[in-house]
Amino acid sequence: MTGGEGGGPERYGGPLPIAVLASGQGTNLQALLDTVHGREARIVAVASDRPAAPALRRAGDAGVPTATFVRADFPDRAARDEAMAGWLTDRGARAVVLAGYMALLTPGFLARFPAGVLNVHPSLLPAFPGLRAVEQAVEHGVKVFGVTVHFVDEGVDTGPIVAQRAVELPDATDPAAVLAALRPLEHSLLPDAVRRLAAGALRPPRR
Amino acid sequence: MTGGEGGGPERYGGPLPIAVLASGQGTNLQALLDTVHGREARIVAVASDRPAAPALRRAGDAGVPTATFVRADFPDRAARDEAMAGWLTDRGARAVVLAGYMALLTPGFLARFPAGVLNVHPSLLPAFPGLRAVEQAVEHGVKVFGVTVHFVDEGVDTGPIVAQRAVELPDATDPAAVLAALRPLEHSLLPDAVRRLAAGALRPPRR
Repeated sequence: MTGGEGGGPERYGGPLPIAVLASGQGTNLQALLDTVHGREARIVAVASDRPAAPALRRAGDAGVPTATFVRADFPDRAARDEAMAGWLTDRGARAVVLAGYMALLTPGFLARFPAGVLNVHPSLLPAFPGLRAVEQAVEHGVKVFGVTVHFVDEGVDTGPIVAQRAVELPDATDPAAVLAALRPLEHSLLPDAVRRLAAGALRPPRR
Repeated sequence: MTGGEGGGPERYGGPLPIAVLASGQGTNLQALLDTVHGREARIVAVASDRPAAPALRRAGDAGVPTATFVRADFPDRAARDEAMAGWLTDRGARAVVLAGYMALLTPGFLARFPAGVLNVHPSLLPAFPGLRAVEQAVEHGVKVFGVTVHFVDEGVDTGPIVAQRAVELPDATDPAAVLAALRPLEHSLLPDAVRRLAAGALRPPRR
């Protein structure tokens, strides 16, 4: 008997089935594949808004189904997100992790995943939300950089903060070097947050 | 011969003469008295906007002249700041350090200290400027707290950042406990910044 002592239809046992959205290299996806996947969580689907995203190949290499939902193929964002949410829930995803996903999600999408939608962002929010966060921080002259995992809401990087980690880089002038220093923080913080989500230790915002 | 090899009238030798402004307990003033005072810097005057500020007693105990400039005793902020700047420069102060000084300074005051006016603020600026910074941060749910030393400009905690230090407090709910955790960071970061200012390693904003 796998999955423990069973339970009613409302009860979920075993690893949390999650979907991952990614637009780029997918190093955070890889960190999840290498750590929580098949343990506390199971990555059941990976979707992207960019067909060329290397993240899709990482997913394929790990045997995870992938799909691409390009904005131009749909009448509007809501329709794109509705199609994406349908595909992800058909794969069994109950929660979603944004790992370098560069598009905003519609409220309709978020409502489909009451177990939570997590994002990882390369700044100590609420400082430097949005695009080019590390560049913004370097231009501002900050000496402490960091990463944030937060629940996604309708705003730009405004949802409840789940976890943060910082690194002091008092002489930082090169955004690429800062980003390289932040990567290892992301790669441990995001799996930690997914573990806590799977363990029921995080309370997603109500919607 | 003290003061090194001398120099022309534009050249300054010996410890940097600084003034400290404080409104409260003065623990940052005490940290400066215990570290840089009489070494890299000399605290030549301590002023306050509050006659009851315990910081004044700390200064007196260290033999540093003190004065209080209460807003109500002057027609406006500019007049108060003008009187305060005059008293500080008469004591020989070339730079000013705000150590828990809770009032805004006028541009006229700042212009009197081209060597720089430094402030220490209990947040990782640009997040949570202004009053009740730690309370703001706790209410926002951040997991990383910190302190910032910055040059003062006409805005509220908006001047160029000089130094920052962070501490991860993922379970913080009590602002007083966070503030207690930040105090040691302030007490090392602010003297470090004053040392760098005295060494000519910091460039104050032009005005």
